[in-house]
Amino acid sequence: MFLHPGFKHSDLLKIPENNLNDLAAEVRDKIIKTVTNNGGHLGSSLGVVELTIAMLRTFNPYNDRIIFDVGHQSYPYKILTDRFDKFDTLRLKDGLCGFPRRSESPCDHFNTGHSSTSISAALGYAKARDLLNEQRQIIAFIGDGALINGLALEALNYVHETGTKIIIILNDNQHSISARVGGFSTILARLSANSHYRNFKKAVKKHSSHKFFKLLEFIRDRVKNLLKPENIFDSLDINYWGVFDGHDIQTCMRVMKMAKDYDKPVLLHFNTVKGKGMPEAEKDPVKYHQVSPRGEIKKRTWSEAASEIITNELAPNNKKIVCLTAAMATGVKLERFAQKFSKRFFDVGIAESHMLTMAAGLAAGGMKPYVFIYSTFLQRAADQLMHDIALQNLPVILMVDRAGLVGSDGDTHQGLLDISWARAIPNLEIYTPSDENSLREIMHMTANISKPVMIRYPRGNLQDIGIKITNENNNAILNIYSGDKIALIGHGIATGINLKARDLAKSEGIFNPAVYDIRRVKPFDFEELDKILREYEIIAVSGENYEAGGISEIIASYMAGNNFTNKLLKFEVPCVCVQHAKSDEQREIFGITPENIINQIKKSLC
Amino acid sequence: MFLHPGFKHSDLLKIPENNLNDLAAEVRDKIIKTVTNNGGHLGSSLGVVELTIAMLRTFNPYNDRIIFDVGHQSYPYKILTDRFDKFDTLRLKDGLCGFPRRSESPCDHFNTGHSSTSISAALGYAKARDLLNEQRQIIAFIGDGALINGLALEALNYVHETGTKIIIILNDNQHSISARVGGFSTILARLSANSHYRNFKKAVKKHSSHKFFKLLEFIRDRVKNLLKPENIFDSLDINYWGVFDGHDIQTCMRVMKMAKDYDKPVLLHFNTVKGKGMPEAEKDPVKYHQVSPRGEIKKRTWSEAASEIITNELAPNNKKIVCLTAAMATGVKLERFAQKFSKRFFDVGIAESHMLTMAAGLAAGGMKPYVFIYSTFLQRAADQLMHDIALQNLPVILMVDRAGLVGSDGDTHQGLLDISWARAIPNLEIYTPSDENSLREIMHMTANISKPVMIRYPRGNLQDIGIKITNENNNAILNIYSGDKIALIGHGIATGINLKARDLAKSEGIFNPAVYDIRRVKPFDFEELDKILREYEIIAVSGENYEAGGISEIIASYMAGNNFTNKLLKFEVPCVCVQHAKSDEQREIFGITPENIINQIKKSLC
Repeated sequence: MFLHPGFKHSDLLKIPENNLNDLAAEVRDKIIKTVTNNGGHLGSSLGVVELTIAMLRTFNPYNDRIIFDVGHQSYPYKILTDRFDKFDTLRLKDGLCGFPRRSESPCDHFNTGHSSTSISAALGYAKARDLLNEQRQIIAFIGDGALINGLALEALNYVHETGTKIIIILNDNQHSISARVGGFSTILARLSANSHYRNFKKAVKKHSSHKFFKLLEFIRDRVKNLLKPENIFDSLDINYWGVFDGHDIQTCMRVMKMAKDYDKPVLLHFNTVKGKGMPEAEKDPVKYHQVSPRGEIKKRTWSEAASEIITNELAPNNKKIVCLTAAMATGVKLERFAQKFSKRFFDVGIAESHMLTMAAGLAAGGMKPYVFIYSTFLQRAADQLMHDIALQNLPVILMVDRAGLVGSDGDTHQGLLDISWARAIPNLEIYTPSDENSLREIMHMTANISKPVMIRYPRGNLQDIGIKITNENNNAILNIYSGDKIALIGHGIATGINLKARDLAKSEGIFNPAVYDIRRVKPFDFEELDKILREYEIIAVSGENYEAGGISEIIASYMAGNNFTNKLLKFEVPCVCVQHAKSDEQREIFGITPENIINQIKKSLC
Repeated sequence: MFLHPGFKHSDLLKIPENNLNDLAAEVRDKIIKTVTNNGGHLGSSLGVVELTIAMLRTFNPYNDRIIFDVGHQSYPYKILTDRFDKFDTLRLKDGLCGFPRRSESPCDHFNTGHSSTSISAALGYAKARDLLNEQRQIIAFIGDGALINGLALEALNYVHETGTKIIIILNDNQHSISARVGGFSTILARLSANSHYRNFKKAVKKHSSHKFFKLLEFIRDRVKNLLKPENIFDSLDINYWGVFDGHDIQTCMRVMKMAKDYDKPVLLHFNTVKGKGMPEAEKDPVKYHQVSPRGEIKKRTWSEAASEIITNELAPNNKKIVCLTAAMATGVKLERFAQKFSKRFFDVGIAESHMLTMAAGLAAGGMKPYVFIYSTFLQRAADQLMHDIALQNLPVILMVDRAGLVGSDGDTHQGLLDISWARAIPNLEIYTPSDENSLREIMHMTANISKPVMIRYPRGNLQDIGIKITNENNNAILNIYSGDKIALIGHGIATGINLKARDLAKSEGIFNPAVYDIRRVKPFDFEELDKILREYEIIAVSGENYEAGGISEIIASYMAGNNFTNKLLKFEVPCVCVQHAKSDEQREIFGITPENIINQIKKSLC
C-alpha cells in the first residue's frame, strides 16, 4: 500500500516510477469507495488518475499553478495533495468540497464548478507571474467538452496576444457530460486519428528529452513552412503536441517534462477513458458521470416530472415545441424527448449562451422553444436572456432546473440568483411550482403565452405537499388554507415547509396560520397581496432565493409604498456563499424549516 | 438621383446594375449627413454600403432572414428597406433606432445591439424554417471583430450539428471597435493574404455561375482529400469562400447568388474598408466608429475622469494595478493608460466573459485588476463575476461605465440591470459616485480593499453638483444638506437632480428637504438609514436603476422589517424596455426630474 494515513505530496515523489501504476490503482479504489458512499462525480476523476500522478510528479503544486476546469475531475488531485485523510468527508457538510477550493488547500489555485474557466484564469496567473517576476509553471487542465464553450474559445484566441507561456493539458475523453458535439469535436477526433502525430508519439517513447527537442523544433519549422495552418491550435499560436495515451504514466511524465522546459504556450493532447478502471463506468460514462450517495431514497424527481409533461402531454399536440439543452440531457431527463422527437431536440454542448440566442432565433422563426437549464448555468446566458429573448419579447420558455439550494455540489452550483436577476428583466414572467400538480398546471398554461417565461423548480425528489389543489383560475398567489392573524407565504419547496409549519402550529394548539402558495412571482399579484396584508397581521415570507432582490422585498416594497405596517418575517437566504452540505442541512443553516418559522412567529408575538 | 422620397426596396431592384455605384454614393452621402447631425455609428455603416446593396439585390428582405450582428452597420439597410423617408429621425426619440428593430420594419428580423448573436440566431431561424417546411434563405451578417466572441464561436462550432444551410457573410474590415486582437485575427489575415483564394476570386470574375460551380466542387473535393483541414471554417464543416472585395458590387452579387444556390452552410469572406468613402474616417476608423450629434456640448466626461484617476493617481504608485478592456479602450478612455503602462494593459477584444475570468486569474496571482466595462456589456460576464470573482472574493475592481440611462443607443444599451443583479452577489461591494470628487474618493479608497468592488458611473459629461464635499469618514450615505420633514435620497446622477429639486423647493418657499447621497449601495448603511427614517417623514428615493431589486426596495425592506411607516416615494425606472431618446428625455419619461420629484412630494403632502 502506497496510500497511507498522513499521505503527503512529498510521499508521492518518493514512490519508484515503476510502482506508480500500483498507486493509481489505490487512488481509484479510494475514489470508488468514497463516491459510492458520499455521491459525487465518478467517471471524470477515474479517467485522470494517471494524468494527475504525472502532473504531480512533474510540477510542484505548492509553487506552480494547476488550474482545473469544471473541477469534478479533481478527486485524485485532492487525494495526492495532502487530503487523503479527509477524503472520506468529500461533499459532506464541513468536509472536502467536490471541486477545487482555495480555502481548502494551498494546492488548489482557482475555485471552479462551472466549465471552461481554466485557460482564462491561467492567462491571468501567467501575466501576474511575468509582472511580478516570479518563477512558476501555469497549467490549465481542461476536458474536451469544456473546450467548445465560448469562454474557453475566447481564451484560446487571446493566448496569441499575451506573449507568455502556459501549458494547456487537454484531457480528451470524447465526452462532455453528455456526448460531445460540434465541429471542434471533429477537429479533435481528426487530430487523434492523425498518423503524423502517431509517429510523434512513438518518438516520445524512443528519444531522450534532449534529442526530442530537436525533433520538436524540426516539426515546428515544418509546420510554419506549410502554406496552411497545421491545425486549429497551431493557427492560434499554441504549439500542439499530441495525441498521447493519458493512461501511460511514463509517457505523460515525459511529455509534461518537455512542456515544462519549453518556452512557448503549448497544448498537450491526451486521450483518456472516462470511468477508467471501473468496467460499468467505462461502459456507460453518462450514467456514471455523477452518482448518488449510498442509501439516498430515489423517488420521482422534478426533472422527471417536467420532462414527462413536455414529452407526453405538450409536445405531441404542438409541433412547434422544440427542446434545447446544453450537454445536460441526462441531468434534466430529456433522453425520452430526444428519442421521440429527435428533430425537435437540440443538445448544443456546453454552450449556454449560444443555446439561448438560438432559442430566440427559433422563436422569432415561429417555433415554441423550451430551454432546459440548471439555474446556476443560466448565469452563463444572462445577457442572452435579456438582450435576445426578453427585449424582443420572444416566447421562449426557460425550464430552470436545480433552482434554490442544491446540496452537495456546493457554492458554485447554488440556484439562488435566478429570482433576483430575472425580476428585473422586462417582459419576462416567472413561475414557481411547489409540487408536480402545480408544475403541470403552469406548464400547460404557459404553453399558450406568447411571452418569455421562466419556470423554476428545485433539485431532487418532488415534494408531496399533502393536498392537491386545482388552480382553475390560474391564481398567481393561491390560498391553500385560511387562518387567523398569521399568513405563511412561500414558493416552491417553501410551500411544503409552510404546510408542515402550519401542522406544527396547530398540533401545538398555539395558532392557526393561513398558507399561501406563490405560483407566479412576476408579474406579482399585488391585488391578492393587498387582501392578505389587510387580513393578516404577521406575514412570514419564505423561499429558496437570495433575500436581496427576492420575494420578501417585493412584499416589503408594496407595504412601504402603501402604508402597511404588518409584521414581516423573512425566511430566505442571505447574501452569502452557500457551502456544500445536504439540502436539508442548508435549510437548517438559514432557518428555512417549519420549526424555525414557528419559533420566529412565536417570538414576534411576544 | 436614385434615392428619392418614398424610396422602396422594389425601387432598388429596378436600378440598372451599372448605376449601383452611384446609388452607393448617394447612400453614403445620406448616412454622413444624418449621422453628423444626429450622432451615431459612422465607420461600420460606410464600410458595408456595397455589401448591403448586393444583399438586397440577391435576397428578399421580406421573405429571407437577414440578421445583422451588433447592428451598428445597418444604416444602409434601413435606407434601402423602405425607411429612407424616416432616416432623418435616426436615434431620435420616436425615430428610427440605431440598430435593427423588428417593431420598426418587416425587414428587420432580429433585434441586436450587443455583438456576436447573429450566427446563433440564424441557426435558430434555419431550424425553424426546416421544421415548418418554409423556403427562405437565412443570412448572418457579421464583422471580424464580433467573430472572436465566445457566443459566435459556440455557434460556429454548432453549425456542424444542425445539418441545415445558413449563409454567413463575414464583413472583414480588420477592426473590431478598437483594433482586432487574437489568434483568430491572424487566421483571417492569413486567409486574406492567401494566393489560393486570390485565384478563386479571379475565377469568380471570369466564369459564369454554372461553370464556377464545377470549380467550386473541384476545390471542395481537393480540400477534403487533404490530410489537414483547409482552414478553421472548413474544419468546422462550413464551406469557406473568399476573400472577395466587399466594395465591388458585381463580385459581391455573383458570390452571394452562388451561395444562395448552394445547398450547404457557407461563409463568404469580404474585405471592406471601415469608413469607406469618407477620407477622414478611413484614416482614423477608431475615432469615426461613433460620432457625437452636431451641437452636443462636449465637457469632461465620467470616462475621462475615471481613466485619469487610474492613470495619473493610482497606477504610478501601485505596480500591481493592471487594466482590462474588451475592445472599448476608446469608449472608456484608456488610451493614455495603454501608452503609459503598456505591459499592464490588456485589450482582450470583444470577449467580456474571458476578460472577467482572466481578471480573476490576475487577482489570484497577486495583481490588482481594474476591469473597465459598460454596464450593458457586463451582462455578458454575469456568471464570471459571480463564479470566478465574487465566490472567490478576489480583489477585482469593476469600473462600470455607461450605468443608468444611456440615451440614443436605445434599449439594448441601457445600464439599468447592474444594481439589481450585483446586489444579490456575495462579497461584492457596490459604489455609486455622483460627481468627479466622489469618483476620486471612491477610487482611492477602494484601491486598498481586498474584495471585489463595482464602481458604477454614468454615460457622458460629468455632473457638477455645485458643492464639493470631502467624505473623510467614507460614509456610505452622505448627508449633503439637512432639512425638515422630507429627505431626498439618491445616487449618481440622481444626487444632482435632488440638489436641483431642493433648490426648486426652496425657491418656491414650500419646503426644505434634506439631501442624502448614497455612495455605497452594498453593503448598505442601515444604521444611517435608520437615523434618516427616524428624522424624516417622507423619503423620496431616486436613481437610474430598475426599481425591481433596486435601491428603493432595500429601503422598503428595512422599513417593513423594522416597523417604519414613513411615506416612501420612488423615482427609479420601472421594468420596461427603455427606447432610444436623449438621456434627459428618458428621465422625463420616468419622472426622474427635479420638477416631478417636487410635484410628487407636494401631492403626498395633501
